[in-house]
Amino acid sequence: MPVAEVVRHMLDAYPREFNVDRPLLVRCIEACADCSEACTQCADDCLSEHSVQELVKCIRLNLDCADMCATTGRVVSRQTEYDANVTRAVLQACITACRSCGDECERHGDHGMEHCRVCAEECRRCEQACQDLLAAIG
Amino acid sequence: MPVAEVVRHMLDAYPREFNVDRPLLVRCIEACADCSEACTQCADDCLSEHSVQELVKCIRLNLDCADMCATTGRVVSRQTEYDANVTRAVLQACITACRSCGDECERHGDHGMEHCRVCAEECRRCEQACQDLLAAIG
Amino acid sequence: MPVAEVVRHMLDAYPREFNVDRPLLVRCIEACADCSEACTQCADDCLSEHSVQELVKCIRLNLDCADMCATTGRVVSRQTEYDANVTRAVLQACITACRSCGDECERHGDHGMEHCRVCAEECRRCEQACQDLLAAIG
Amino acid sequence: MPVAEVVRHMLDAYPREFNVDRPLLVRCIEACADCSEACTQCADDCLSEHSVQELVKCIRLNLDCADMCATTGRVVSRQTEYDANVTRAVLQACITACRSCGDECERHGDHGMEHCRVCAEECRRCEQACQDLLAAIG
Repeated sequence: MPVAEVVRHMLDAYPREFNVDRPLLVRCIEACADCSEACTQCADDCLSEHSVQELVKCIRLNLDCADMCATTGRVVSRQTEYDANVTRAVLQACITACRSCGDECERHGDHGMEHCRVCAEECRRCEQACQDLLAAIG
Repeated sequence: MPVAEVVRHMLDAYPREFNVDRPLLVRCIEACADCSEACTQCADDCLSEHSVQELVKCIRLNLDCADMCATTGRVVSRQTEYDANVTRAVLQACITACRSCGDECERHGDHGMEHCRVCAEECRRCEQACQDLLAAIG
Repeated sequence: MPVAEVVRHMLDAYPREFNVDRPLLVRCIEACADCSEACTQCADDCLSEHSVQELVKCIRLNLDCADMCATTGRVVSRQTEYDANVTRAVLQACITACRSCGDECERHGDHGMEHCRVCAEECRRCEQACQDLLAAIG
Repeated sequence: MPVAEVVRHMLDAYPREFNVDRPLLVRCIEACADCSEACTQCADDCLSEHSVQELVKCIRLNLDCADMCATTGRVVSRQTEYDANVTRAVLQACITACRSCGDECERHGDHGMEHCRVCAEECRRCEQACQDLLAAIG
């Protein structure tokens, strides 16, 4: 089942009110799950390339971005006793991690590295989803 | 985008051969992402219930299961220099965590706790997906 | 063995140069490990209290802080192809998470909740260690 | 402060009884923190080596082992509503991950790769600490 559906079912069952824009929240959680997965696999794909030496920066940023997306997905999934300062700072860190990783992956994607191309797309999507949620939070 | 699609794109781009059954692998990675998310939200939902005192065991198992599913999703996502012993042991631990958490969530789901009902379903699905991948690995 | 010793041994063995102030780096990695552990245990301790209902906010912030400290510890542990933007944003998010969690734990610590008192101390220490590393990075 | 001290302070403040052998528990939690850190740094060190191509298996097992140790440290840190089946399965998976990673690191450590030598030691120590806790649980 898509993660977004799981998120929607769980949000429907949330026992209190919550103020966050629901579709933006769902999209952000899904984008974090997607990007964390893409980065974990891209790091692994890079390790299998003959040109691994040239992909060291990509692997490093993949690992950072996978960790940061996983943490962000968890933090924004929690509605109880929501703390706007924490959510904002975490989203900002995730945006930065996605941008750095996306930039690096894009460079290799432009030179035919297909997993980097796909991963760059997920980084851009996650960066945008975090930006949108951040803007909605204010 | 569903996590399963991200996984498929990334597996298409994997530079080496891999021996694992592809559809079972995709389903397992997606089920781990779903279950980790469901457990993170179920713990949070339980914290917002008036009856939180009675849900302490559920929260605890949700936290364990969320962590174990996240780790399992990462380990099985890595194809490079695959180590069957590690994969097997990690899948077995994930199966056990999903079963314990699923049993506890089901008890509360049967008493009208909707988020526990949904979470129990994800635990069962993840347990099954890990079992199927484990059987395929042999 | 203390984590700080492991970190020192590993930094001694790092094959390239790195520019970060070594003692500040070691202290930050250790503080992240300590605070992540304290928060994981504090959430668990709160779940075992009769007054769990009043500790819901504390548990929620413990979970966020544990996740954010774990990710920060990993990001700052990586020296290869260091990206100052990512490190800075991650440290800032960690500082914010530690401050919110520390404030909430302190309130309960002042009312006799010993695990919250200890956890608040670790949050303050980690916040400071991240601040110091951030200042050194510039 | 060493993680072991944080753990001891937090266990002193735990509001209920717990049955696990205290020194074995403290040692296991500390060993998981140490090994997770060592593996995170060893993967990063390997990425900085000229011979990164020959260290791909080491990096992959480092990543698995770091994730599994982090999850194990969290699961065994939780005392509330302790579930022996989950703890056992998680410890077993951690033992397997530490053994595979320790074996691979040792091979490179024997050939002068100092960070692999240190990391292998932490893997052995963590494997033993998990074995001891597993034996005590029965």
